[in-house]
Amino acid sequence: MTVEPGTRTTPAQQALEEELIGRVLASFDNTPDPRLKQIMQSLTTHLHAFIRDVRLTEGEWNKAIEFLTAVGHITDDKRQEFVLLSDVLGASMQTIAVNNQAYKGATDATVFGPFFVEDAPEIPLGGDMAGGASGQPCWIEGTVTDTDGNPVPNARIEVWECDEDGFYDVQYTDGRIAGRAHLFTDDQGAYRFWALTPVPYPIPHDGPVGKMLDATGRSPVRAAHLHFMVSADELRTLVTHIFVDGDPQLEIGDSVFGVKDTLVKEFAQQAPGTPTPDGRDLGDSSWAKARFDIVLAPEGV
Amino acid sequence: MTVEPGTRTTPAQQALEEELIGRVLASFDNTPDPRLKQIMQSLTTHLHAFIRDVRLTEGEWNKAIEFLTAVGHITDDKRQEFVLLSDVLGASMQTIAVNNQAYKGATDATVFGPFFVEDAPEIPLGGDMAGGASGQPCWIEGTVTDTDGNPVPNARIEVWECDEDGFYDVQYTDGRIAGRAHLFTDDQGAYRFWALTPVPYPIPHDGPVGKMLDATGRSPVRAAHLHFMVSADELRTLVTHIFVDGDPQLEIGDSVFGVKDTLVKEFAQQAPGTPTPDGRDLGDSSWAKARFDIVLAPEGV
Repeated sequence: MTVEPGTRTTPAQQALEEELIGRVLASFDNTPDPRLKQIMQSLTTHLHAFIRDVRLTEGEWNKAIEFLTAVGHITDDKRQEFVLLSDVLGASMQTIAVNNQAYKGATDATVFGPFFVEDAPEIPLGGDMAGGASGQPCWIEGTVTDTDGNPVPNARIEVWECDEDGFYDVQYTDGRIAGRAHLFTDDQGAYRFWALTPVPYPIPHDGPVGKMLDATGRSPVRAAHLHFMVSADELRTLVTHIFVDGDPQLEIGDSVFGVKDTLVKEFAQQAPGTPTPDGRDLGDSSWAKARFDIVLAPEGV
Repeated sequence: MTVEPGTRTTPAQQALEEELIGRVLASFDNTPDPRLKQIMQSLTTHLHAFIRDVRLTEGEWNKAIEFLTAVGHITDDKRQEFVLLSDVLGASMQTIAVNNQAYKGATDATVFGPFFVEDAPEIPLGGDMAGGASGQPCWIEGTVTDTDGNPVPNARIEVWECDEDGFYDVQYTDGRIAGRAHLFTDDQGAYRFWALTPVPYPIPHDGPVGKMLDATGRSPVRAAHLHFMVSADELRTLVTHIFVDGDPQLEIGDSVFGVKDTLVKEFAQQAPGTPTPDGRDLGDSSWAKARFDIVLAPEGV
């Protein structure tokens, strides 16, 4: 949809706008750090191209200043509206993309999100990461290998997710630790654990970012997902999710653009009474199972 | 300096980054207001191009979030750090440029700035707008015409400037009104008044924007200037400044990119005792004089 810069303007007007950009770029010429210089010059190049493309009016510029001010004022220790803004513009996901380049068959990365917590409890292989959080029990299993197909023993797997009401433990005020854990792969690089079948939930949308989503006809809802962070010596740490095949939000669109087709997995529904892989008795509860085979890229690619 | 997007990456990686942009653009497809849709799609196009151009790291993304948070938190009713940020990136000036297109011989526009006040006192032709503000007296005269050379009688001219210490009246806490006024052109479209010879002054630079200027080796100082806003029936309102030929800050660079060569005027220094144009007795004070002939474009161009 890009409008050619300077469309509908005279050559004199275009020259004036370009001369201004030249002066702005030159103002950064004496930046001591060459990387900062590169960033500021690229940022201003694209910022000016945007203003010229849309022929931004002074009223629209005022609205932009008001919007950013509101984003700044709602942001505090507990709420980061600038991160939310970056997320819903796809900027967070693009940053993840450029820092986790596609490499052979390595598993795709996706957004980290704001709900990871250090030092989540360790569980044994086959243990339950739900920690009392409500939701449908779900058996997850798979392997961790490198891109040559070698199993990765003792890989550290961090997992976290929301409960069936769409809230992470840290969103409650009672200090609970639930829906998060870490475990390690066995000698064959295999892992397995009980989790909860993921459910969709909205990002916080009662602030300026929520208003923007509303004005643009967008859903604040994130597709259902389970977070993974997988690390092992000499391999690139993978931050990713798995998504639930059949989740209607996959069609509507994930509000932070985290979905990749390769990360959508079948969560096979099991009727109550169906025997579980480890013999666990779930009473009259249905359950689900999913498989996620993880491939880690070499470090530094 | 623009790096071609996707340089140093594989075709698979480029495809992945482009597919993400496609999804972000499509998310705005249902925006009811077509102008908002255009703005959001152009904004995200350029934002993603920036991230890809510089291959923004996750650490740099974090610093950007921290910077914007600091800009938000210092902003209040009296201080607008987002406007300052827009100013020092040249975005304010580019917005002025696209909304005040070059038209025949019309006088160039420049930034409005944060220090204009409605209802400044009216002075007669030849009156003094200093209102007790300190500085060297300066006689300003000129004409207002349209782009066909016809004089514009009764044009309203608003003028405002800082005192010799670099402060506008509104930056003092004593409620003074000084260094601002409005007047009207005579039947021949001519005007004349006493002002102060403009001096350079720094924008507020004790916040995150000041830190950014410091890190990039830039001066926070604005070139010396006198603000004008000129309006008349059926003509485009002109917001501009005049700058002082010989001001060393013109070489260093105006911190908000407001300078245009056509707006740099000779402020001719006059020794003490030199007769003044209107016979005013300035005692043993030196003074200056400058001429500014203003050409207004038609409304709506």
